[in-house]
Amino acid sequence: MPVPATETGVIETFMRHLGAVRPDVVLGIGDDAALLRPQPGCELVQTTDALVEGVHFLPHCVPRSLGHRALAVNLSDIAAMGASPAWALLSLTMPKIDAAWLGEFAAGFGELARAHSVALVGGNLSRGPLTITVQLSGQVAAGTALRRSGGRTGDEIWVSGTLGDAALGRQSPAGGAQDEHAAWLRARSEFPTPRVALGEALRGIASACIDLSDGLLADLPRLAQASGCGAELHVERLPLSAAAKARGGESASEQALAGGEDYELCFTAPPERAALIAALGTRLEVPLSRCGRLRAAAGLELRRDGAVIRFSQSPFDHYVS
Amino acid sequence: MPVPATETGVIETFMRHLGAVRPDVVLGIGDDAALLRPQPGCELVQTTDALVEGVHFLPHCVPRSLGHRALAVNLSDIAAMGASPAWALLSLTMPKIDAAWLGEFAAGFGELARAHSVALVGGNLSRGPLTITVQLSGQVAAGTALRRSGGRTGDEIWVSGTLGDAALGRQSPAGGAQDEHAAWLRARSEFPTPRVALGEALRGIASACIDLSDGLLADLPRLAQASGCGAELHVERLPLSAAAKARGGESASEQALAGGEDYELCFTAPPERAALIAALGTRLEVPLSRCGRLRAAAGLELRRDGAVIRFSQSPFDHYVS
Repeated sequence: MPVPATETGVIETFMRHLGAVRPDVVLGIGDDAALLRPQPGCELVQTTDALVEGVHFLPHCVPRSLGHRALAVNLSDIAAMGASPAWALLSLTMPKIDAAWLGEFAAGFGELARAHSVALVGGNLSRGPLTITVQLSGQVAAGTALRRSGGRTGDEIWVSGTLGDAALGRQSPAGGAQDEHAAWLRARSEFPTPRVALGEALRGIASACIDLSDGLLADLPRLAQASGCGAELHVERLPLSAAAKARGGESASEQALAGGEDYELCFTAPPERAALIAALGTRLEVPLSRCGRLRAAAGLELRRDGAVIRFSQSPFDHYVS
Repeated sequence: MPVPATETGVIETFMRHLGAVRPDVVLGIGDDAALLRPQPGCELVQTTDALVEGVHFLPHCVPRSLGHRALAVNLSDIAAMGASPAWALLSLTMPKIDAAWLGEFAAGFGELARAHSVALVGGNLSRGPLTITVQLSGQVAAGTALRRSGGRTGDEIWVSGTLGDAALGRQSPAGGAQDEHAAWLRARSEFPTPRVALGEALRGIASACIDLSDGLLADLPRLAQASGCGAELHVERLPLSAAAKARGGESASEQALAGGEDYELCFTAPPERAALIAALGTRLEVPLSRCGRLRAAAGLELRRDGAVIRFSQSPFDHYVS
C-alpha cells in the first residue's frame, strides 16, 4: 500500500473506516468537525486520556497494544459512569509516518472500537514525540449515571476481575521463554478489558463507582472522599489471579493495592444488594469481590485478617511515575 | 501558591474553574467523566486539534498565546460548521509541572473560553514533551450545520478577515524593536480570532464553509472537491491587511494563499446572497471579501487581473511543515 505522506492521507487511509458504523453519526471524518445525533433523554458523558511514550509505555511497545489501550482507558472511564460508549476522537503525534506501525495500531484500536460500537468520528495527526490522545463520548439516561459521590457509610466495597495483574505484567520481559502465567499477565497489561457491560448493569444498583487506573490505594480514597466517607479494606479479600499468585508471590497483594492500570471497576452498594450483585457477576461472567466497606471516619484503613496494617508504597500516579 | 505535584493537584488548581459556567454541565471536572445535557433538537458537533512544541510553536513560546491558540483552533472548526461551542476537554503533556507557565497558559485558555461560553469539563495531565490537545463539542440545530460539501457551480467564494497575517507574524522576531505593523502581525499569529459569531450567522446563507488552518491553497480545494466542483480564485481580490502590505511587500499575497494558521472562514454562497452577506459583515464588524467562484471544471485556477497564473509554493501541512 502506498505510504500516505500527509495528515489527510493518513486519516483517510487508517482512520476513516476504523470504528463501528453507527446510525447516529450524521457526518464522520472528513469535514471541519463531526455531526452526531444524541439520543433524546440522555446525558452526554465525556472523557479524555493520553498515552505518552516513555511514561505510559516503553519505546518499541507493540503498536496493536497501544491502539487497544488508548481506547480501553477511555472506555473504562465511560464504564465507571455506567454509560454506553458512542463516539471517539483520536489525536496522534508521531515522529514519522510509519505505515506498518499505523496499520497495527489501527487494528488494535479498531477491533476494540467495533466490539463496543464506538465510531471514530474525528482524527488529528501531528509530527512530534509519540503521543496518543483519545476523547470518548458516551450516553446515559438522564439522572442515572454512576458517580464517585453516591456512596454511604455502611455500603460494601466491590471490585471486578482480579487486581495487580497489569503491574506484574509490566514487569514480565517481552519475548523470550515465558511460562503461561507470565504471558497471561503480560496480556492483561497490554490488552486490558474495560468493564463496559458491567458498568451499564450497575446503574440503579451501585451507589458509587470509579475505575481503577491508578490502583486501589489511590482510587478508592477518591471514591470515599467524594462520598464524604472513609473506607476500610480487607486485603486478604482482594481478588488475585492464579497467575499473580504464582508469579507475584509476596508482592501480589501489594501490586493489587498499588500497581495501577488494571482498569477494573471499584464500586459500592448497600449490603442488601449483595445477592443481586453476585448474580450480575455470574450473568456477565465477571468475578465480583466484596473487599471492604465505607465508614464514617475519614481515611483508608487497611486490614489483613482483622488486624490493621500499614502500607508504605506510594500509589501510582500517571504524572510522577 | 503551593506548586501541585500531581495530576489531580494541577487539574484542581488550574483547570477546575477555568472556563465558563454553563447550566447544561451536570457534572464537570472531578469524576471519571463529565456529564452534559445536550439541547433537544440539536446535533452534537465534535472536533479535536493539537499543538506540539517544535511543530506548531517554538520552544519558549508565550504560554498565554498557547492557551489561547489551543482553544482557538478548535473554536475555528466549530465556527466552520456554523455551530455554537459548548464543552471542552484539555489533555496536556509537559516535561515538568511549572506553576508559572500553567498560570499563564490557563489565563489564555480561560479568557477565550469564557468569551465563547465554553466550559472546560475534563482534563488530563501527563509527563512528556510539551503537547496540548483540545477536544471541543458544540451544538447546532439538527440539519442546519454548514458543511464543506454544499457548494454548487457558480457560487461565489468569500473569505473573512485578512489573510497571510499569521504567516508574516510568525516571521517577526519576538521582542526587540518592532514597528506597529510587526507587533500587530505577531498578535494575529499568537492570538488568532476564531469567527464563531460569523459561522453561526452564516447558517442558511452560506452553501459551504471551511476554516483556513492550512491556507487557502490547501483548504479551498478541500471545499471545492467536497462540493464536486473546482474553483477559480482572483488573487488581487484577496484581503490583505495594511500591516501585511507594509511588511510583506511582494510576498504578502503569497502568504495570503499559502501561509496557513489565519483561522478565517472561507465560504461559498449563490451570487444573489451577496448583499445579505455584505450586510452581515457590517453588522458583525468582520471584513468579508468575495474573491472567486466555484466552477464545474475540477482543480484550482488562480488568476491575477484576469490572467491565469501559476503558483509553486507547497501548501502548508501541519504534518510535514
